[in-house]
Amino acid sequence: MDEKKLPSQAENFSDWYNQLVLRAELADYSPVRGCMVVRPYGWALWENIQKALDKRFKETGHVNAAFPLFIPQSFMTKEKEHVEGFSPELAVVTHGGGQELEEPLVVRPTSETIIGTMYAKWIQSYRDLPILINQWANVVRWEMRTRLFLRTLEFYWQEGHTAHATAQEAEEHTKRMLDVYTDFAMNEAAIPVIPGQKSASEKFAGASATYSIEAMMGDTKALQAGTSHFLGQNFAEAFDIKYLDENNQLQYCWTTSFGVSTRFIGAIIMTHGDDQGLILPPNLAPYQVVIVPIYRKEDEKARVMEVVRQIEKGLKDFRVKVDDRDDLTPGFKFNDWELKGVPLRIEIGPKDIEKGTLALARRDIPGKAGKTFIPMEGYVQAVGDMLDAIQANLLVKATKFRDEHIFEVADYETFKDVVENQGWALGWWYDDAENEAKVKEDTRATLRVFAASEGEGTCFFSGKKTNKKAYFAKAY
Amino acid sequence: MDEKKLPSQAENFSDWYNQLVLRAELADYSPVRGCMVVRPYGWALWENIQKALDKRFKETGHVNAAFPLFIPQSFMTKEKEHVEGFSPELAVVTHGGGQELEEPLVVRPTSETIIGTMYAKWIQSYRDLPILINQWANVVRWEMRTRLFLRTLEFYWQEGHTAHATAQEAEEHTKRMLDVYTDFAMNEAAIPVIPGQKSASEKFAGASATYSIEAMMGDTKALQAGTSHFLGQNFAEAFDIKYLDENNQLQYCWTTSFGVSTRFIGAIIMTHGDDQGLILPPNLAPYQVVIVPIYRKEDEKARVMEVVRQIEKGLKDFRVKVDDRDDLTPGFKFNDWELKGVPLRIEIGPKDIEKGTLALARRDIPGKAGKTFIPMEGYVQAVGDMLDAIQANLLVKATKFRDEHIFEVADYETFKDVVENQGWALGWWYDDAENEAKVKEDTRATLRVFAASEGEGTCFFSGKKTNKKAYFAKAY
Repeated sequence: MDEKKLPSQAENFSDWYNQLVLRAELADYSPVRGCMVVRPYGWALWENIQKALDKRFKETGHVNAAFPLFIPQSFMTKEKEHVEGFSPELAVVTHGGGQELEEPLVVRPTSETIIGTMYAKWIQSYRDLPILINQWANVVRWEMRTRLFLRTLEFYWQEGHTAHATAQEAEEHTKRMLDVYTDFAMNEAAIPVIPGQKSASEKFAGASATYSIEAMMGDTKALQAGTSHFLGQNFAEAFDIKYLDENNQLQYCWTTSFGVSTRFIGAIIMTHGDDQGLILPPNLAPYQVVIVPIYRKEDEKARVMEVVRQIEKGLKDFRVKVDDRDDLTPGFKFNDWELKGVPLRIEIGPKDIEKGTLALARRDIPGKAGKTFIPMEGYVQAVGDMLDAIQANLLVKATKFRDEHIFEVADYETFKDVVENQGWALGWWYDDAENEAKVKEDTRATLRVFAASEGEGTCFFSGKKTNKKAYFAKAY
Repeated sequence: MDEKKLPSQAENFSDWYNQLVLRAELADYSPVRGCMVVRPYGWALWENIQKALDKRFKETGHVNAAFPLFIPQSFMTKEKEHVEGFSPELAVVTHGGGQELEEPLVVRPTSETIIGTMYAKWIQSYRDLPILINQWANVVRWEMRTRLFLRTLEFYWQEGHTAHATAQEAEEHTKRMLDVYTDFAMNEAAIPVIPGQKSASEKFAGASATYSIEAMMGDTKALQAGTSHFLGQNFAEAFDIKYLDENNQLQYCWTTSFGVSTRFIGAIIMTHGDDQGLILPPNLAPYQVVIVPIYRKEDEKARVMEVVRQIEKGLKDFRVKVDDRDDLTPGFKFNDWELKGVPLRIEIGPKDIEKGTLALARRDIPGKAGKTFIPMEGYVQAVGDMLDAIQANLLVKATKFRDEHIFEVADYETFKDVVENQGWALGWWYDDAENEAKVKEDTRATLRVFAASEGEGTCFFSGKKTNKKAYFAKAY
């Protein structure tokens, strides 16, 4: 196999993904099975994701904090569904400082239990509510089959945890954060996610209701890209999170939690990438623009580099990389930055300088169709406009792809064909956990989210009347 | 005891510290012994520390990445001194996913071993060098006696790890990062640290040389506020970090590491704080300005709040908190924000509005001496200037305090009196690990760092000739 050539998506999507993550230097395998190393290029992408989300969290009244990595094992058992859901996935510290611990500590798989304990301590009266805290953290879930970003033993995420005085307020907040995620996915990552409620069998262990944003990958499989949970009073009762209301009555709080993880990087890769490599949305790309100087002789080099540095200076409000590596050809550099998905390439050579133009190549439109020449005069505005155009085009393309691969189904035979060969199925669904399990066993497709729907119809599986529609798909 | 009153520093410095951390809501104890919860106010302070450091890391060519939390136990044993130093402090995961692990995993106490393993994989030739990576992470060291921020089982930090082609380059980088830390401490935290080299007995387990910045706390004890290590080829040999040089010869790399942790928050508290509470340097304070509206009746309130919002708007380039809590008196709010160390308070009441002035109160100058009235016209500039003045004054005050509590000593009797009753001792020191241990046993004072010195003198302990001077002090 040619070391330099990526497998095509059509050939083997899964292989394409795995190799791309490594070759683009987003992440690497670590010596600990299932734990990943996020390399600088991947971490810069994550930092941009963090900034875009954190801004939205602060705008919706959240503050950041940090809660402990370790949770006493007994805490995990206080909420019945929570312990059932997470027990099989726990990493357990049994020894510390050379001694066996009296009570083992669990490495947090999620922090409802430890944060709930602190909220019980901090919240006294209705005046302390709502409490809206987020943390950026690493968490650990013991996975047997792991894949970089998509499913790793340790991963990075944000987890928001809120407590409210009323059910209505908590439910509204759950949906508000789902909206925040949808807005972030659409407008920053150019991923046209479908937001909606999960079925009972797919909800978070301990939640009363789980909502998620579902994204369609380039192989038409679904990826859950963020979740927002209405926890009812389940954790408030388990951890004694109470407040004195305005009538001096002790009440349980209503809580929520919501999270987006480094898994989202997998969603970006598989939504926009092509056979040449990554295609990163300008709003999140570590480098929005790469400048490749083109010269043959030393005297050309000095002239070219002077212009390159001048152009770079003018673009100081963008994230710009000048590829001044001396030992590599322009052609090699083009491929390298295409692999790494930089949205816009500027080529500057002696001819361009003579003509007073810049050669631009858009990563989202391959080949000649994506190449233009612009006058150096006013290039800053032109570059900004083109990045906006790329950002917009990625969303349009991904939306078109998504819509072309969602099929309305009315009967189970069609359903099976759709989820096996064509993409997502959307159909009337009579909500029934047993039937859902049967569909999953038959087809490996799962109910992603309930869809917005009006009126009534006939369930494609059971034939029963229902007012609900749902999306089904195979998923990551 | 009055719940509202902080113990004075003179009364009990340690108690003052512990209670202040809790009452200012910087951090709280968690249910896991020794693990802290960093509350939103404390985390906002840490985020500002992170920004100030991260900017400096990027300016010196570093990129961020993330390496795994878990390290195979066998990795820890590869560098002889490293394993001796860290073995007693390890937390060990023995079970995962319900199974006992074949090889236990250590929760990282520091990441030289895991990062070294990856560097060995990534570095091929001199062209790959230097490699300059930083990570912001949580680490765990099993401590028996813990104190919030100063010594916790889990703490937060940055750890920089670099690999270089030559010893000289690595040594220069070690010192460059010490300079970065010194610059950060002086110019952002207003802490007049003393940078210098550690003695062999105080160096990092596995380092060839350790440098640190040492800060003097309000009780004159020393606190090591950041360290930079020249690791020689110790880790390169243990983890096989090699490169092909320009002559195609395989060489071991030279590596460094350096870190600043949430301990630094303890340094800020104990350098600047007073009996009223925290005093935060404007450059790092979560809120630089608090505006307290003053009104008695409802009609006053509307008028006052209108001006308050207008003043707040003008200060949008600063971090401003408007304390609009309705159920609390201005006096209560003054105390509250003094406790929380906000550098500048603006009071706005009907009289101020009539006169067209703002009442300013500086946190660094208590009482009437710190109060001024400024005309509303040009208040933005005036507030900025005053914050600059506060930042500068904190450094001047802390430097004066430090210099008043460092005493040159020429004999051991004086030395003992100084480190017991007066502060730090600075004296000629003949470098000898056994003598150092004796001094420590006698006095509990340790060699903090070697001092810049010229010429020769007589060691205050051994009477031997030496060209080295050193600082000694009791330390946190």
